[in-house]
Amino acid sequence: MAKTLSIDGKRLYSSLARLGKVGAYKDETAGVIGVNRLALTAADGEGRRLVTKWFREAGLRVTVDKIGNVYGRRRGREDHLAPVMLGSHIDSVPTAGRFDGCLGVLGALEAVRTLNDVKAATRRPLVVAYFTDEEGCRFGTDMLGSAVATRRLPLERAYALKDRDGLTVKGELKKIGFLGHEPVGRLRPHAYLECHIEQGPTLRHKRRDVGVVLGVQAISWAELTITGKSAHAGTTPMSFRRDAGLTASRLNAALREMTLSGRYGRDMRAAMGMIRLTPNMVNVVPGRAVCTVDLRNPSDALMAKAEADFARLCRKVADQDGLAVASRRTAKTPHVPFDESVQALIADRADRLGLSHEPILSGAGHDAQEWSRVCKTAMVFVPGERDGISHNPREFSTLKQCADGVNVLLGAALVLAEEA
Amino acid sequence: MAKTLSIDGKRLYSSLARLGKVGAYKDETAGVIGVNRLALTAADGEGRRLVTKWFREAGLRVTVDKIGNVYGRRRGREDHLAPVMLGSHIDSVPTAGRFDGCLGVLGALEAVRTLNDVKAATRRPLVVAYFTDEEGCRFGTDMLGSAVATRRLPLERAYALKDRDGLTVKGELKKIGFLGHEPVGRLRPHAYLECHIEQGPTLRHKRRDVGVVLGVQAISWAELTITGKSAHAGTTPMSFRRDAGLTASRLNAALREMTLSGRYGRDMRAAMGMIRLTPNMVNVVPGRAVCTVDLRNPSDALMAKAEADFARLCRKVADQDGLAVASRRTAKTPHVPFDESVQALIADRADRLGLSHEPILSGAGHDAQEWSRVCKTAMVFVPGERDGISHNPREFSTLKQCADGVNVLLGAALVLAEEA
Repeated sequence: MAKTLSIDGKRLYSSLARLGKVGAYKDETAGVIGVNRLALTAADGEGRRLVTKWFREAGLRVTVDKIGNVYGRRRGREDHLAPVMLGSHIDSVPTAGRFDGCLGVLGALEAVRTLNDVKAATRRPLVVAYFTDEEGCRFGTDMLGSAVATRRLPLERAYALKDRDGLTVKGELKKIGFLGHEPVGRLRPHAYLECHIEQGPTLRHKRRDVGVVLGVQAISWAELTITGKSAHAGTTPMSFRRDAGLTASRLNAALREMTLSGRYGRDMRAAMGMIRLTPNMVNVVPGRAVCTVDLRNPSDALMAKAEADFARLCRKVADQDGLAVASRRTAKTPHVPFDESVQALIADRADRLGLSHEPILSGAGHDAQEWSRVCKTAMVFVPGERDGISHNPREFSTLKQCADGVNVLLGAALVLAEEA
Repeated sequence: MAKTLSIDGKRLYSSLARLGKVGAYKDETAGVIGVNRLALTAADGEGRRLVTKWFREAGLRVTVDKIGNVYGRRRGREDHLAPVMLGSHIDSVPTAGRFDGCLGVLGALEAVRTLNDVKAATRRPLVVAYFTDEEGCRFGTDMLGSAVATRRLPLERAYALKDRDGLTVKGELKKIGFLGHEPVGRLRPHAYLECHIEQGPTLRHKRRDVGVVLGVQAISWAELTITGKSAHAGTTPMSFRRDAGLTASRLNAALREMTLSGRYGRDMRAAMGMIRLTPNMVNVVPGRAVCTVDLRNPSDALMAKAEADFARLCRKVADQDGLAVASRRTAKTPHVPFDESVQALIADRADRLGLSHEPILSGAGHDAQEWSRVCKTAMVFVPGERDGISHNPREFSTLKQCADGVNVLLGAALVLAEEA
């Protein structure tokens, strides 16, 4: 059955388009329509209600857990067995396209719709899921929902996280109506699969249909608070200034130099994505800067070296500029390898569908890395056009690219669902 | 009379303290109470109503012009003669102390109160004034009210200026009740005097009681818009990135190097006071940065050289980083020399009061530079403690420092007011 069963690519693609209308905005920079469904905002709530409705229409039994993760369950022939779970997320960064996360959720839903169309039963139950706040943009901790569901992050700590307006995860979950009752930390799937866009240029440049994901590179986030002295920009002699914005700028430039140095491997990546100055006014020397540092590396050892060297650099620049730099770790995940047997299965299903494939390490964090601690896990990557640009409204994968990835997902899920 | 008349320093200082309560906030960086009366906000409106009430209580006839400048007039013996005007501003940067601007306005009011106390009459009328939005923080153009009153800036252009929320000067003036009826551009004072804190360390370091201001250094403001490409911070290879925040950071660092190079004189000052990134998120490479550049120089020629070199630098960095840097001039004033006869008068009055004094160039822009085009003008500077820190809640001048400056102001005003 798995060899011939094929999803409805048009239906999948039109669901992606429909969900992409929720939180849509006109993006001035990209010149196209973007998506902003920042976690636990009204737009996220609207997206959740739409997808949950689709879950129910596909016959799935929906439950919501205490951190707002939503599960849609399809019965198995041996329904007491641990389910095969297919999931991802539908929250977005504030300047997103319509594919990141959504492809995994709506692809899993499409797999179920396809099984329903042919009235196919699986031995194990299937669970289609979307997890709360994978992006981490708003509350500073990514993979929030799956981290809580897999017990890496205690529920109460997640609840207490605040956004920059002081609003808590718990309060915002309640506000959008997704503070569920299901306990967290108990679900132990038989296997976890996630289909996701690559969000990078590799598969497209190599002209591969899908990627078989080896694992996720190490990720380290820090928030720096730089305390200088706000002062009049016209009257304060240069030697008296303690310009927190300048120190942030110097660290940003130094971070780029680190990536170019080659001392942390060819694949070290770094970005200062956020800079907030106080008071942020044309004629006031900034007294305070808060900025973020996002480091990625496929090697835990090189990551540790980069972290240590950057910390040393912060101390050095702080000394030179005569002000204080405090650093707070906001996220830290080691290199996560995925299950080799599931990788082999994905490659095999791609072969059977006549699709070319390529082993690839993920540059981004994904919910799959959390579930990999609980059950055997792997991911299918789909290439992206436009150099695989993502976290940008110009993010784009074709109907065929999406359908190929989801067909591989479905094929692998059906094999896993028949396992004893 | 002018030799012996002395203001009430305590009354002046307590008025400064009272006005400093309007818009007060707890400043986390400075650890003290600061003042935020950004122009045409509710707090500015409250401050205006308080000072206007004081004007009326001092017997002044109050008028408000079409750009919201407020004038309090005291009759002269020959009331048809052009008045001597004493003024400054009461709006503030968002992280201010209680002295910047307010000393000039409440000092002028205190001078009038002192004359009232002894029932002294002057030949020419006196006008005490405060001008709209001297700081320029909110609508991007400083000395707004005095620029309109002295015809440098057309009223309609000033009205149309918008803050970052799209609110206009005209709308906000109306909202706080200070859209007046007096025509602008007609007032031609006999002379203009302004007492102001130095906002720098020089007078305090040289232990001088007051400064006799030679003029104002050239000021140039620009807003840069840097357009890169927002992208995923984990998956986008470094060579594919067009990081607008990094370009802003590089320009900020380069600006500091320019001031240190000595090529623009010893007194070139520069700050990137504002940086706004889009989307400003930890895991997104910033696609857009808007930042400001504030340049100061006592020499118009060196300023022109710095502007040209910085423009060249922007093009070079834009080329290197592969993105676009657009620059828009938001303020530009040449070096403004003050009237030498009024400077001599100020020095003379200080001598007669037994106060030490020092000629000094202003590092900041002031309303006086606008009035200097219309009538003979000069300023009295008062030293500041704590290295003259300003645009900061720690801004501080002692009661004696303030009183000395205002006594010199009063003495000079009385001489000017008797002139034919």
